[in-house]
Amino acid sequence: MKKIEHIGIAVNDLSSAVLIYEKLFGAAAYKEEEVISEGVKTAFFLNGPNKIELLEATNPESPIAKFIAEKGEGIHHIAFEVEDLLAEIDRLKKEGFVVLNEIPKKGADNKLVSFLHPKSTNGVLIELCQEIK
Amino acid sequence: MKKIEHIGIAVNDLSSAVLIYEKLFGAAAYKEEEVISEGVKTAFFLNGPNKIELLEATNPESPIAKFIAEKGEGIHHIAFEVEDLLAEIDRLKKEGFVVLNEIPKKGADNKLVSFLHPKSTNGVLIELCQEIK
Repeated sequence: MKKIEHIGIAVNDLSSAVLIYEKLFGAAAYKEEEVISEGVKTAFFLNGPNKIELLEATNPESPIAKFIAEKGEGIHHIAFEVEDLLAEIDRLKKEGFVVLNEIPKKGADNKLVSFLHPKSTNGVLIELCQEIK
Repeated sequence: MKKIEHIGIAVNDLSSAVLIYEKLFGAAAYKEEEVISEGVKTAFFLNGPNKIELLEATNPESPIAKFIAEKGEGIHHIAFEVEDLLAEIDRLKKEGFVVLNEIPKKGADNKLVSFLHPKSTNGVLIELCQEIK
């Protein structure tokens, strides 16, 4: 794992959250993108070597809608950048982590992604992501 | 704000969490430290330009004990590194953020820190931190 690629934050309303985080960072979001398969629309901010991803659910079955219903708005996941996603999935399975997507899926921002179940990581939903070249 | 300095993760038991995160990162914690004023003991991992801080409460009044009682183990806060903490506090107050520590306090890992109230940041507890020189 090379660095925190981004932190995902679940929000009720993307437009108003974007205004807040623009003030926080003193800079505009560099990208907005809808991921239909995940039921989310997203906005990304750059912060030095890291990114912040704001996520709003686009339907009630979206993982983000379920998360907010249970816990309210807040930090949803941490994503770590990896060099070789398949090798990392294999290594982490052997270490006892519960890998939710043994076959990586297409995420936002041109990435292949796989998640680790929070029950094996002290309640933290961890995303592993690899840039699609 | 220059980058994510660290992410703080609230855990029930620091020793067992350290073992899990050592496996995750394939590397040992570089520091363990108790912050008596905050009622926490902590362990830090390096991950490229970022750090992960695991926090265990040392008494029931600790903010970490209260967080876990309410939400369970998981991501507690994001800390951003800033160049000039007092100037950043001033700027963010003017932007409408609720600053919890207008006078910065001493945090772990040789830092002056100040927090923003989650109600002004979509449920995210944000720490601003500046290295003590």
